Amino acid sequence: MGENIVCGRNAVNELLKSGNPVNKIVMKSEKENGQGRNADIVHRCKERGIPFQFVDNAVLDKLSAGEKHQGIVALSAAKEYVEPSDIIAIARQKGEDPFILVLDEIEDPHNLGALLRTADAAGVHGVIIPKRRSVGLTPAVGRTSAGAIEYVPVARVANLVQTLKYLKDEGCWVSGAEAGGKDIYQADLKGPRVVVIGGEDKGLGRLVKETCDEVISLPMLGRIASLNASVAGSIILYEVLRQRNKG
Amino acid sequence: MGENIVCGRNAVNELLKSGNPVNKIVMKSEKENGQGRNADIVHRCKERGIPFQFVDNAVLDKLSAGEKHQGIVALSAAKEYVEPSDIIAIARQKGEDPFILVLDEIEDPHNLGALLRTADAAGVHGVIIPKRRSVGLTPAVGRTSAGAIEYVPVARVANLVQTLKYLKDEGCWVSGAEAGGKDIYQADLKGPRVVVIGGEDKGLGRLVKETCDEVISLPMLGRIASLNASVAGSIILYEVLRQRNKG
Repeated sequence: MGENIVCGRNAVNELLKSGNPVNKIVMKSEKENGQGRNADIVHRCKERGIPFQFVDNAVLDKLSAGEKHQGIVALSAAKEYVEPSDIIAIARQKGEDPFILVLDEIEDPHNLGALLRTADAAGVHGVIIPKRRSVGLTPAVGRTSAGAIEYVPVARVANLVQTLKYLKDEGCWVSGAEAGGKDIYQADLKGPRVVVIGGEDKGLGRLVKETCDEVISLPMLGRIASLNASVAGSIILYEVLRQRNKG
Repeated sequence: MGENIVCGRNAVNELLKSGNPVNKIVMKSEKENGQGRNADIVHRCKERGIPFQFVDNAVLDKLSAGEKHQGIVALSAAKEYVEPSDIIAIARQKGEDPFILVLDEIEDPHNLGALLRTADAAGVHGVIIPKRRSVGLTPAVGRTSAGAIEYVPVARVANLVQTLKYLKDEGCWVSGAEAGGKDIYQADLKGPRVVVIGGEDKGLGRLVKETCDEVISLPMLGRIASLNASVAGSIILYEVLRQRNKG
């Protein structure tokens, strides 16, 4: 993955807060960018000994490769993927039932970014994505995640079905989200839990669906057949959280 | 508002299903666009006597003004805004407690589109947006809403605070979403309900917040301070729905 490009004030701030290694921060001059706009970031760079540099906007445009950068870009050590077993270990270390989000071929970076953000907030221990036909941890994902990309462990696997079987062997119950399943408010979502969300237009893959222990669905009262993938996934993650907290 | 431009297969299909008036459908030729790709839509146009036309891609690009069109655009009668009193009337007519979503200066068309989609699915009677500093019902909103723009009544008001007071006079309880409020899972969200979601970076306006009966928040277990506005709003709408259905 090489070096990671983090674009925009919010994402750079989250990166700095995360304590993860930062190689360099590159920004527009104060003069060009508005008085004091990046003073906090310059201050933090000095404090932590992170090199920083003022450049022309064109340099930032090039670095960010089309991503909105708001005059600031950080070059960080590449975000490392973890293994599914690491995610199980993280849950065990916290003394919690595993709570894992599996994304079956999410292609829109904004959906992956929003789901990482919700995963962080809902207390998910880790996210698993397939190597093929899925967006990876790109700068666009980082920016939409509002920094969550720095906090949420992500595993990238060659074979999602095999991974789901491994998670079942580890005692997890696998709930796939798709229309026509059990209403999430009727389902028991407590205990070691894997939630599988399908791709934007395709839903769950056939083999993935067959590997799930159950299919769960949001009630849909209106005339639209489906919700945005990141919205649907987020509602389900929070329902799992609600049920877990109820004890 | 003049004529409304609806872009993309999904949105055009939803428009046709809605039964709302369509002035014309414009698409790439079958030859250019792939065999049979729009056959269903041509069939429906013939059935309903809607004029249709095959054009070059450049014409579609111009009509859609940068919005992704997938080779098809519909020109429909402009979506009419309703009044807040119409939304109350719709709820009464259904014999239901009003369930209303108020958006305080949402600026991103994708967030408004996704929220309209969730509003339709969660059984919201109508959405209220301010005239100023808010995105309106643009083609980008229509496309992201996956057709929900055709189904969900939207009111656009000059003064949000006044409108909230009116809704309170009509017996609604107004819950504003912002960090630091009552946990949504501890709050009682049943009964006539208005949910207010703040703008992307700003949250609720000061006067709007003061007019709310209570401030409610999502539990945030991770290190990120906030969720995407459409995700946060959608989770809250579904929690209201869950509590309403519990009776």
